[in-house]
Amino acid sequence: MASAAGEEGTVRFGIIGCAMIARKLSRAIGLAPNAAVVAVGSRSLEKSRRFLSDNGLDAAPSPPTVATRRSSQTRAWTPSTFPSPPASTCAGGGAAASGKHLLLEKPAALCAADLDEILAACDAAGVQFMDSTMWMHHPRTAAMRELLSDPVRFGKLRTVNSIFTFVAGPSFLENDIRVKPELDGLGALGDVGWYCIRGILWAVDYELPESVVALRRPVTNAAGVILSCGASLVWKDGQTATFHCSFLANMTIELTAVGSAGTLHAGDFVIPAEERSAAFSFSSCAEFSDLHTSWGPLPSRHVVSSGLPQEAQMVAEFSRLVGGIRGAGGKPEKKWPDITRKTQLVVDAVKASIERGFEPVVVGS
Amino acid sequence: MASAAGEEGTVRFGIIGCAMIARKLSRAIGLAPNAAVVAVGSRSLEKSRRFLSDNGLDAAPSPPTVATRRSSQTRAWTPSTFPSPPASTCAGGGAAASGKHLLLEKPAALCAADLDEILAACDAAGVQFMDSTMWMHHPRTAAMRELLSDPVRFGKLRTVNSIFTFVAGPSFLENDIRVKPELDGLGALGDVGWYCIRGILWAVDYELPESVVALRRPVTNAAGVILSCGASLVWKDGQTATFHCSFLANMTIELTAVGSAGTLHAGDFVIPAEERSAAFSFSSCAEFSDLHTSWGPLPSRHVVSSGLPQEAQMVAEFSRLVGGIRGAGGKPEKKWPDITRKTQLVVDAVKASIERGFEPVVVGS
Repeated sequence: MASAAGEEGTVRFGIIGCAMIARKLSRAIGLAPNAAVVAVGSRSLEKSRRFLSDNGLDAAPSPPTVATRRSSQTRAWTPSTFPSPPASTCAGGGAAASGKHLLLEKPAALCAADLDEILAACDAAGVQFMDSTMWMHHPRTAAMRELLSDPVRFGKLRTVNSIFTFVAGPSFLENDIRVKPELDGLGALGDVGWYCIRGILWAVDYELPESVVALRRPVTNAAGVILSCGASLVWKDGQTATFHCSFLANMTIELTAVGSAGTLHAGDFVIPAEERSAAFSFSSCAEFSDLHTSWGPLPSRHVVSSGLPQEAQMVAEFSRLVGGIRGAGGKPEKKWPDITRKTQLVVDAVKASIERGFEPVVVGS
Repeated sequence: MASAAGEEGTVRFGIIGCAMIARKLSRAIGLAPNAAVVAVGSRSLEKSRRFLSDNGLDAAPSPPTVATRRSSQTRAWTPSTFPSPPASTCAGGGAAASGKHLLLEKPAALCAADLDEILAACDAAGVQFMDSTMWMHHPRTAAMRELLSDPVRFGKLRTVNSIFTFVAGPSFLENDIRVKPELDGLGALGDVGWYCIRGILWAVDYELPESVVALRRPVTNAAGVILSCGASLVWKDGQTATFHCSFLANMTIELTAVGSAGTLHAGDFVIPAEERSAAFSFSSCAEFSDLHTSWGPLPSRHVVSSGLPQEAQMVAEFSRLVGGIRGAGGKPEKKWPDITRKTQLVVDAVKASIERGFEPVVVGS
C-alpha cells in the first residue's frame, strides 16, 4: 500500500470509525490498486492510534474532523469512509460539503429525509457518493445480472425471496450499535435487512415497489430496536418479493429470483462463503419428465472468481469514479446515490408498516 | 406386478380417474412390493380400457363406481386412489363408507368442511386415509427431519420459505382441471401451493399457524381461479413462514428452514430432480470469519438414495398400514388424515385472506 500511495492517481481515504468493518475496509483499501488510507479518525486519538497499529497502517491518527479537512498532500479530495453509526452520519453531509467524496457504511441513514441531506450536500459539492454494499461490486453480481437480463433464459421477473440472518451473540445483543436506538435504531432491518432489500431491488433492476407490507411477528429488544422482521413487496406490474432478516437465526444468506423462464439462486449473495470465488445456480425452461417423476434441465452451477475481494473491488470502483471526477472534471456517477435512496425508501416503508400495525405502506419517491 | 398380485398380503388398488397422475400412481403401485392395480375407473369405459392398455395393466376397466364395490377376490378392502378433481372426491366419502381405504390426490377437498365429510366416513368405516403427497415418503424427508429435530445442530425453528412454481403451457391454462372453477377451483393454491403449505407445516412439525395473511397481487384467470399467489404465516411462539406458488413461473421447488442454530435447504423437495436419489444442504452454527470476509462452516450436501421412487414408497407405506388393519384388526394411522386436514385448513385460510382483501385470517381448527 505504501508504494501505491505514492503513485499518480491514487485516491487517498480517511476512515472515520474504528469498528470491525473499518478493519475490513482498511484492508480493502490496501488491496485496491488505486487507493490508500491516509488518516483514521474515531472518538478518541488513542483508539485511532491502536487501529493504525493493529492494521499496520502508516497514516495519521486524527479526531473525527479529519473527514472535513482537505488533504494537503494531493490535489484530490480525500474520500471518506464512514463505518460509523448512521445516527452520526450527519458528519457525512459535513464531509461532503467540504468536498470529500463519500463511501458510507449501510444503513446510509436512519430515514430518507436524513439521507437526502447528505445526498444534497454531495450534489452541491459535486462529489461522488456510494454506500458500502460490497456485493454489488463482485464480478458474480455482473454475471448474475447478465442472466437476469436475458429475455429468453430468464424472461420476466415474477418473484424474489431473500433471507439474511445470523446469530448475534450475547455481547452483540447487549452492546453493539445495531441494537441501540440512539445509535442505529434500524437494528436488523438496517443491517441484514438492508442487504435483503438491496438484493430484491437489484433483481427488479431498481424499480421501486408500489407498496410494502411488513410481516407479523417482528422481534424487538427492550428498547424497541428490531432484531428480526420481514416484509412483502409488490410492484405495479405484478412482481412480488418477500424477505426475512434477523440477528436471531443461523447464518443464512439467500437470494432466489424466479422469472417466467428462469430461476437464479445464490446461497451467499452478500458475503461469498469463500473470498476469491463465488457461485450461484441458474435453471432455465425446466420441465417435468414424463409422469412427473423428475424434472430438468437441472440448475447449472456457475462459479465466478474474483481477483480482488468484493470490498476491494468496491474501493477500486469508487476510486476510479473519484479519479474520473478530479482528473477530467467529470461528474459523479448518479447510479450509486440513486440506489442508496431507493433502498432507504423501502427500509423506511417496512419500518412504517411495522409501526402502523402491518398496514400496506406506499413506497415514497 | 402380475406375480406380486397373487402373493399373500398384496393390497389391491382401484384407481379412479385416468389423468397423467394416475399413470404415475399406477406405475408406483406396480413398483411397490405389496400392491397391485385390480381395477381402473373413469368417466368412460373406453377411457379406462385405453388407460389399461397404455399402462400394460392386467385389470378390469370399470365405471367410477368400482371404488365403492368391495373386492370379490380377496377379503381385503380394495383401497382406492383418487387422482380425480377434488370437486368429485365426494366419491371418496362414498368409497370409504363402503369400506375402501382411501389414497386421495391433493388437494384433498375444496374446503375443510368437504374434507371432514370424507374423513368422517373413513373414521366410521375404520379405513385408512392418506393424501397423495409423495415427497412425505422419500427417505430424504426422514433424513431432513432428523436434522430439524436436532436441538444442537438446528435448534428452534425461526422461519421457513417455500416456493413451488412451474410454467403451465397454453393447453393447461385453457383446459386443465386445475384452472376450472367447477372442477378444481383452488387452482395453483390447491396444486403447487398445497406442497408449499405442507412443506411449511412439516418444518414446524405440524403445529397449525395462528394466522395467515395472503400476499398482495395474486393472479387469477378470467374465471377467478388462482394462477399465482402467496402468503405469510405466523405461529404463537413467533415462528414465521412465507410461500409463493404459481403456474406462471419457471420450475422452482424450494424449501428453506432456518433455525436458531441451523439452516436446511432443499432445491427440489416435492419432486426430486432425479428419481433414485435426492439431495439437500444443511449448515449449522455458521459464523463469519475474522473481518467478515467469508463464513463457515459451509453448508454440507447430503444425498439420500431411494430404492423405490417416492410415489412407490408412498404406496408401499399405505399398503403396509392397510395390511396392518385388515390382518390384525389394527387401527388406521391418524397422522395422515390429521396432516391432510391441517394442510386444508391453511389452504382455506389463504383463500379466505385473498377474498377478504388480504386481511389476516385466523386458522381454523
